[in-house]
Amino acid sequence: MKNIIIAVDAMGGDNAPANVLQGLALSAVRHPEASFLLYGTQSLIEPFIKNIPELTNKYTIIHTDTMVSMDEKPSVAIRQKNSSMALAIEAVRDGQAHGVISGGNTGALMALSKLRLRMIAGIERPCLASLWPTLHGECVVADLGANITACSEELVDFSIMASEYARIIFDKKNPIVGLLNVGTEEMKGNEIIKNAATILTEKQSDYDFGYYGFIEGSDICKGTVDVVITDGFTGNIALKTAEGVAHLIGQYLKGALLSSFFSKIGAFFAKKSLMAFKDKIDPRKVNGGVFLGLNGIAVKSHGGADDIAYAAALDLAIDLAKGDIINAIKEKIAQKQQHCSQKLPVTTIENDDIPKTA
Amino acid sequence: MKNIIIAVDAMGGDNAPANVLQGLALSAVRHPEASFLLYGTQSLIEPFIKNIPELTNKYTIIHTDTMVSMDEKPSVAIRQKNSSMALAIEAVRDGQAHGVISGGNTGALMALSKLRLRMIAGIERPCLASLWPTLHGECVVADLGANITACSEELVDFSIMASEYARIIFDKKNPIVGLLNVGTEEMKGNEIIKNAATILTEKQSDYDFGYYGFIEGSDICKGTVDVVITDGFTGNIALKTAEGVAHLIGQYLKGALLSSFFSKIGAFFAKKSLMAFKDKIDPRKVNGGVFLGLNGIAVKSHGGADDIAYAAALDLAIDLAKGDIINAIKEKIAQKQQHCSQKLPVTTIENDDIPKTA
Repeated sequence: MKNIIIAVDAMGGDNAPANVLQGLALSAVRHPEASFLLYGTQSLIEPFIKNIPELTNKYTIIHTDTMVSMDEKPSVAIRQKNSSMALAIEAVRDGQAHGVISGGNTGALMALSKLRLRMIAGIERPCLASLWPTLHGECVVADLGANITACSEELVDFSIMASEYARIIFDKKNPIVGLLNVGTEEMKGNEIIKNAATILTEKQSDYDFGYYGFIEGSDICKGTVDVVITDGFTGNIALKTAEGVAHLIGQYLKGALLSSFFSKIGAFFAKKSLMAFKDKIDPRKVNGGVFLGLNGIAVKSHGGADDIAYAAALDLAIDLAKGDIINAIKEKIAQKQQHCSQKLPVTTIENDDIPKTA
Repeated sequence: MKNIIIAVDAMGGDNAPANVLQGLALSAVRHPEASFLLYGTQSLIEPFIKNIPELTNKYTIIHTDTMVSMDEKPSVAIRQKNSSMALAIEAVRDGQAHGVISGGNTGALMALSKLRLRMIAGIERPCLASLWPTLHGECVVADLGANITACSEELVDFSIMASEYARIIFDKKNPIVGLLNVGTEEMKGNEIIKNAATILTEKQSDYDFGYYGFIEGSDICKGTVDVVITDGFTGNIALKTAEGVAHLIGQYLKGALLSSFFSKIGAFFAKKSLMAFKDKIDPRKVNGGVFLGLNGIAVKSHGGADDIAYAAALDLAIDLAKGDIINAIKEKIAQKQQHCSQKLPVTTIENDDIPKTA
């Protein structure tokens, strides 16, 4: 089995490094092929990690006292040399690690990753992709907020990249892609999304995914498609709205089960099943946003992640590294560029034939 | 007490007129001041309604055989003379009713309402507003899909109109308005939303609402504000995503409570509380979208609404009529126009001082 090395920003997140190291322990048991480069304050990491037998001989600590704070502006963070986040990213750039994970400042992680890892040739902007629970399992949703707008071509790029993600994680040969819209009819939506639909319809087979068509918000949880594509503004609001709804229902249910003597008895008998239910809607299990489009795997864990959540994000980084997602995306994007350059002269000739209006 | 007359498209919706008439019965008990003009096929309505004692002397049937089908294009629907939907809307236009309700084709209802009722002077586009459950009760969210884009001024108009809605329904003197965005910091979001924020900050007191600032998707259910404002594309996707999440969690919970012998016993004991829980997340209770910005109250009920859901939408139409929402909005918009025209000469002079670029 191929050895996988993950660079870890051990100082990133609200409870770092404790939650990070405990998360590593959980993931290490599931992934004996993985080892870790830990960037952070040695005196904080070492005493803790020595008491975690699961991690014996699995890690190297690279000491740095500098760290990016959670409320630092990305523009300031990129000027901080030797932060645990920057060094971890550089390990991927320099070929010392297969991927990087951080629970730190999201904006800083994106800015630093873009700067150090650079974009894959042919990709203008990265997108943030994550798993989303559905009636049938999970789907990939992108962009969840790496950008606040997206043009048609970018929505197509997101589709290509998120499909590679889905292919690896779901082990599906031809993932199905849907464009998030306000209705499923072809006439619905703005010009950007309609143009993206036209390109996806035409090009789907070139990139080994199936284009389903437009989907609505309710289709995300239904599991209508494997990959949901939208712009970062809508995607971020959909994600956070969903989190809010799940929390609200959880609070309602808690209130209901504690509301009377009989309901408490009921909750007692149903406890095991209710725990399984809680486990199923546990957002920690789908923790881990991936910045797709970069020349390296960069995974963002929630800042408030505990060990279980952190391990889920780490599992993702390891699985994507095993699936060699970066080369898979590069291959598809190279294909796209070939199509574009082949098409370019034809388009020019056609354009010359069309009389220019205004 | 002021008598309220509601024009009812008795043929609109999947189970019309049965669900419509049963819904009327539920609402009539709660609103003794209300009576109804029923538009539709007399032979279908009359035998049914005669057996509903709650509606005795509360209604007039205006017969028509024409109705707008659920999948009719709005452009076709507006040319159908004498449809039950068109006639019901015209009753509001002609001052015979205080509001109209339909469970029929949404696009047709919006197109016909815009055409027959026309926009309030000073409003360019209507928005679709609806109640949304929160930890503290409910909030108003707009636009839920009347438009697919919105400029800054339109987001401000939506804020003014939806605040009047909130003032009446929540009986709050100064409702709090938030703009839905991808973060709460001032620098977040696109130019449209940032400009809207600037205008709202400046003008909030003129319109008797408080501007909270940017909110995130998770704030909707938290009940951070009374009024959530967004463009129709994002709002529609947020709404449908939320519906999908609620359905998914409901399915998970059902599965959990039926998964074992003990969980079934638990569900039996907790039945009453679980029913109350189900009732609380029941989307029927917040049924009823209102097209704000029209010269009349137009309420859309879900097409698949049963009697409880239909009655909720009808309650809303009656409450908004009692609160005289149309005149409340007109007053605020007239104020806005006064501000604009007062400002106009100043702006023109300033503009002349600025050298034109490009």
